[in-house]
Amino acid sequence: MQEKIKNKKINNNNNNTNKPIGIFDSGFGGLTVMSAINKALPLESLIYFGDTAHVPYGSKSKNTVIKYSKEITSFLMKHRVKLIVIACNTASAFALAVLQKTLNIPVIGVIEPGSRAAVNVSKNKKIGIIGTEGTINSKSYPHEINKISKSKVYQQACPLFVPLVEEGWSVGEITDSIVKKYLKSILNKQIDTLVLGCTHYPLLRKTLEKNVGENVKLIDSAKATAQEVKNTLKKIHLLADVKGEQFLKFYVSDNPDKFQEIGSRFFSKKISGVKKIEMIS
Amino acid sequence: MQEKIKNKKINNNNNNTNKPIGIFDSGFGGLTVMSAINKALPLESLIYFGDTAHVPYGSKSKNTVIKYSKEITSFLMKHRVKLIVIACNTASAFALAVLQKTLNIPVIGVIEPGSRAAVNVSKNKKIGIIGTEGTINSKSYPHEINKISKSKVYQQACPLFVPLVEEGWSVGEITDSIVKKYLKSILNKQIDTLVLGCTHYPLLRKTLEKNVGENVKLIDSAKATAQEVKNTLKKIHLLADVKGEQFLKFYVSDNPDKFQEIGSRFFSKKISGVKKIEMIS
Repeated sequence: MQEKIKNKKINNNNNNTNKPIGIFDSGFGGLTVMSAINKALPLESLIYFGDTAHVPYGSKSKNTVIKYSKEITSFLMKHRVKLIVIACNTASAFALAVLQKTLNIPVIGVIEPGSRAAVNVSKNKKIGIIGTEGTINSKSYPHEINKISKSKVYQQACPLFVPLVEEGWSVGEITDSIVKKYLKSILNKQIDTLVLGCTHYPLLRKTLEKNVGENVKLIDSAKATAQEVKNTLKKIHLLADVKGEQFLKFYVSDNPDKFQEIGSRFFSKKISGVKKIEMIS
Repeated sequence: MQEKIKNKKINNNNNNTNKPIGIFDSGFGGLTVMSAINKALPLESLIYFGDTAHVPYGSKSKNTVIKYSKEITSFLMKHRVKLIVIACNTASAFALAVLQKTLNIPVIGVIEPGSRAAVNVSKNKKIGIIGTEGTINSKSYPHEINKISKSKVYQQACPLFVPLVEEGWSVGEITDSIVKKYLKSILNKQIDTLVLGCTHYPLLRKTLEKNVGENVKLIDSAKATAQEVKNTLKKIHLLADVKGEQFLKFYVSDNPDKFQEIGSRFFSKKISGVKKIEMIS
């Protein structure tokens, strides 16, 4: 990542420091990442795009997710963002490399920071990954983790977690049974670390913690990603430095009212002024 | 519906009788309708389109669903279909009227046949409807049912049913608990008829039957819709009449392999030769 940034033609004159950061996801999930970035970097302006016309990405193919991601980033580039965060595991798994090649600003996904955090935390180097079908089948986490440190990685796709969270059933008996069913096999592998490989999953943290027990640490890549954003902006001298001028903007491709309502569950502040953008696709 | 057909310029010379019927849905669900049409009309050629790049429709807005439906029907029209079936409750609720206005062939949705079947079966005229958020919020069923016969209609959105079916969890303790939770309030209304207002739901029939008890009849609009297709084609003299020439074709906007695999759960025959179509949107 760092080498790639070095090689980019990045225009880092002073006028650029207060440009916004672009963040996108298939829907609401990425707001957990935006929230972490907002906490770590309160002076930064943030533009969020939720692709609610195409949600969910987790069950869609690589080419389709790349097509959607390209369209969103070209929208964000028109807003003169200085850095883009792919706040979605599936889109990070499928589209990060393509976007890093084609855009002339840094692009950060959630999988690399999440993997690094997992390796730092795990003592026995047995790491579990839960995520959508797309993320799990891409094998991005095992690949990324093993680039950092040789580890045993056990994966489990949990397709019902996203609809459960979107339905607002983050706790309760039903959610408990579903969590038990999905985690049974990877918990048998004596993992000591479990990566929440989908930005929706932090909303299931309570139920997940109860079920994995005290010996397994949960890794939510939101914080690690926010740290990576901070380090990258610092390195290229683009950290915002003017107090009181920052803004938070929200765009979606469908259902702005629903986004405003449900989004507040995922974000630390009340969401308002959500605008709908008509996508080509 | 019948009046609308009369007024259309329909070219019903003999060459047209063996043209295919076009059927579409957001994904797999409509295959339950295709299956019923195939049983009722074995001489008909059928072209199915599953919009797997945009699935699910149930949580999307009216305008977005109309946009997708128009694009699909223009694809089907290029295949010279003689009639179109919207084999999806959400798309029927949102796009039927628009498509009936703009296309010069008959367009049949699932809501009108399902409503008629419910009115025919219900004795106490207390009818329950379960469906996606989009279908329920559109109030299409209460509207359609009350056009036929004054009835009390109780609705319940069940957003987790589609992901449950797509995960293959049609029976079992978890599915049982989710069904109980969603149905509790409408079962308290003494309904004697429950409309499965989503083409995925027939796959939950066993669990639903167990939970509603013997006094509540389940209405699956697939059969009623197939009958409506038959009546319409008969009326306009376009029933297929040549044995041995019929074909079944399957198109999707994403993941043809997954469609082939999962689709067989929804269709009465093994599915093969699924082709992916790149949609504009």
